[in-house]
Amino acid sequence: MGLVVQKYGGSSVADAEGIKRVARRIVDTKKRGHQVVVVVSAMGDTTDELIDLAEQVSPIPAGREFDMLLTAGERISMALLAMAIKNLGHEAQSFTGSQAGVITDSVHNKARIIDVTPGRIRTALDEGNIAIVAGFQGVSQDKKDITTLGRGGSDTTAVALAAALDAEVCEIYTDVDGVFTADPRVVKKARKMDWIAFEDMLELASSGSKVLLHRCVEYARRYNIPIHVRSSFSGLPGTWVSSERPASLASRDHVSQGSQGGSPVEQAIISGVSHDTSEAKITVVGVPDKPGEAATIFRAVADAEINIDMIVQNVSAAATALTDISFTLPKSEGHKAMEALSRAQTVIGFDSLRYDDQIGKISLVGAGMKTNPGVTATFFEALSNAGVNIELISTSEIRISVVTRADDVNSAVQAVHSAFGLDSDSDEAVVYGGTGR
Amino acid sequence: MGLVVQKYGGSSVADAEGIKRVARRIVDTKKRGHQVVVVVSAMGDTTDELIDLAEQVSPIPAGREFDMLLTAGERISMALLAMAIKNLGHEAQSFTGSQAGVITDSVHNKARIIDVTPGRIRTALDEGNIAIVAGFQGVSQDKKDITTLGRGGSDTTAVALAAALDAEVCEIYTDVDGVFTADPRVVKKARKMDWIAFEDMLELASSGSKVLLHRCVEYARRYNIPIHVRSSFSGLPGTWVSSERPASLASRDHVSQGSQGGSPVEQAIISGVSHDTSEAKITVVGVPDKPGEAATIFRAVADAEINIDMIVQNVSAAATALTDISFTLPKSEGHKAMEALSRAQTVIGFDSLRYDDQIGKISLVGAGMKTNPGVTATFFEALSNAGVNIELISTSEIRISVVTRADDVNSAVQAVHSAFGLDSDSDEAVVYGGTGR
Repeated sequence: MGLVVQKYGGSSVADAEGIKRVARRIVDTKKRGHQVVVVVSAMGDTTDELIDLAEQVSPIPAGREFDMLLTAGERISMALLAMAIKNLGHEAQSFTGSQAGVITDSVHNKARIIDVTPGRIRTALDEGNIAIVAGFQGVSQDKKDITTLGRGGSDTTAVALAAALDAEVCEIYTDVDGVFTADPRVVKKARKMDWIAFEDMLELASSGSKVLLHRCVEYARRYNIPIHVRSSFSGLPGTWVSSERPASLASRDHVSQGSQGGSPVEQAIISGVSHDTSEAKITVVGVPDKPGEAATIFRAVADAEINIDMIVQNVSAAATALTDISFTLPKSEGHKAMEALSRAQTVIGFDSLRYDDQIGKISLVGAGMKTNPGVTATFFEALSNAGVNIELISTSEIRISVVTRADDVNSAVQAVHSAFGLDSDSDEAVVYGGTGR
Repeated sequence: MGLVVQKYGGSSVADAEGIKRVARRIVDTKKRGHQVVVVVSAMGDTTDELIDLAEQVSPIPAGREFDMLLTAGERISMALLAMAIKNLGHEAQSFTGSQAGVITDSVHNKARIIDVTPGRIRTALDEGNIAIVAGFQGVSQDKKDITTLGRGGSDTTAVALAAALDAEVCEIYTDVDGVFTADPRVVKKARKMDWIAFEDMLELASSGSKVLLHRCVEYARRYNIPIHVRSSFSGLPGTWVSSERPASLASRDHVSQGSQGGSPVEQAIISGVSHDTSEAKITVVGVPDKPGEAATIFRAVADAEINIDMIVQNVSAAATALTDISFTLPKSEGHKAMEALSRAQTVIGFDSLRYDDQIGKISLVGAGMKTNPGVTATFFEALSNAGVNIELISTSEIRISVVTRADDVNSAVQAVHSAFGLDSDSDEAVVYGGTGR
């Protein structure tokens, strides 16, 4: 029986009842003989309420003080959780990020973990305690200031601690049952996966799936820490995210997969279909078709600290020697990007800019597509049959993404999900013939 | 222009508006050329809300975790206050008790300060910052755990920092205008003092005055740090608490005292009248009148960790060789004390116990009574004229206290206040004749 790290999100500890329910689950794990480290987020809407207070006293809250403020939320939930566990007759101690040894850089509001030195956690565990750690926070290496890790920070705290403590598994408890083959709100027949490889999870996370953030999965892959994503409201097993399918899943699979009518996961070529409607598309019209033009455009965008996603350059119209370059980026950064490009118009020498935020992106992810011909063809046929027009295409070794009209996203996701035999009432995953991808 | 420590209580920073008002006051002090360190309490009812949450998850919250929970309150207020100051264009940094170097023992929920090592505060000040420090909290010397200082802890934090930083003054901002000659809710003609000596303030604090806690004044006296108690809602000067009357008060006095029709404070014999209705009286009836009996009784009480206040032993009735011993203690500890004594009944050999929580205590305080005869006589005459019956008497060099019925407390305080010329429409303090106290 090894060490288990469990992470509970804000919705799992939204009130006193939630905290007591989580405490019972933690104690159950301890009773099964594990050493248990728990990472906890702030209760329910606490963080939003603190942000609201900050905006009332200062329109642009300062980084250092803002982090000091926000970290109060986890301090409350972790102390309450430790009390609730003690009330069940078990020993528990809570630790701030700093006390837990979560060392970060000094970039306030989105610090990165540099090192984890969990000496105090180890001592607490050796003394028989359950260790409760504040998620989302650390302490800066140089100035010893309190920092926060930004979006999804608590998941990253959990994985980082699991790595530093050489944990057996990092369990991420959330309000959904696991990772699905598509968003269940869009695809009614979406299936919960019992396992997904790190690589596929990374692609899903970067193409719209919100269950786990890319950063957290990347950390887990680097240190080879299996993640188990599961619901804190049910007792059911969730989805394992790891380098290889856990041997322990074999027997359980036939039951759960059988009851869902699915195929054994070993045969799966495709992990899932993700979608994203949070991006916009900018088209730079009439760019001189000569070397260095694209570099000038994307340098202007990069200097404004904007992350871009897909890029497409049209074939030049021979008559004019002008071309169009399109790229996608988060809608939230659209305004900033348009300004940066406008300022650079004379330098770059383009005709005009077009901004379009009525787009959606659909991605098909699966390590199996590397070796299985015909995936691309099936994908485009499915979209075509659903009457969905494709505006941009981008691929990686294990992913194909297309941009469509935002209105078409839901039907596109459903069509692709069915075409690859992912629907929960399909008997088998589709087997591909033909050549090429 | 030296260093000023300012402390703001929870009612002063109850909401965003309060925080902004306090920020302006702090910046005004900084603009006058001072280095400023601010100690802040949790916003309004935050601490009570956290206690309520703790009780929901665990009936008897554990000390260490309870401290971790409660300190979140100051973390929120101090970060917001720093943001509000920055928003006014001044530099501010917030520090937890631990970051500020407030080192305590390990007694959770009521830790005592062992040392203050404010290196980071000093650096922040030298760099031109206003330093904001979380009140009420520290870090334990041995285990590096977060501790809280108990009731009135933020005032103690402020005085301790003032001592460690060699501050010119420790300003305690509160929701009253200063220290009064009696509780203004009871005595309409109570007068705000412009100065009171440490010794008199200590006696007032231990006999019912709630403006400053005994512990905080004791700390200030030990390190000779002048305290200035004043309102955060008005701009008026409050009450100085120090070893000697500040020279700077001379001119201001004649104005303020004149407008109130009072006497120059230099002549004052009596500082004020305090009262306390939070105590109960236990009488141990029929105690054998032989050596060691009182020791046995108070050992039983002390072992239950109960603090007692006044003690009176009746003259023994010769016929029975039995006596009665009465003492007062906080009502909140009455139940525990009665249990402890009942358990010890056979050992001590008393007849019975009587419990009375309908008592009140009135105390007259003033260093001048040491050298002024007649104070005691005037005190008892005033009580007698007001028809107040006295149940217990206790004295120190600069204080006389009596226990009466709780119903008599208000009229007793008013009578004594008038008799010593403390009413705001009196022209002069009373001059005593006669001999004895």
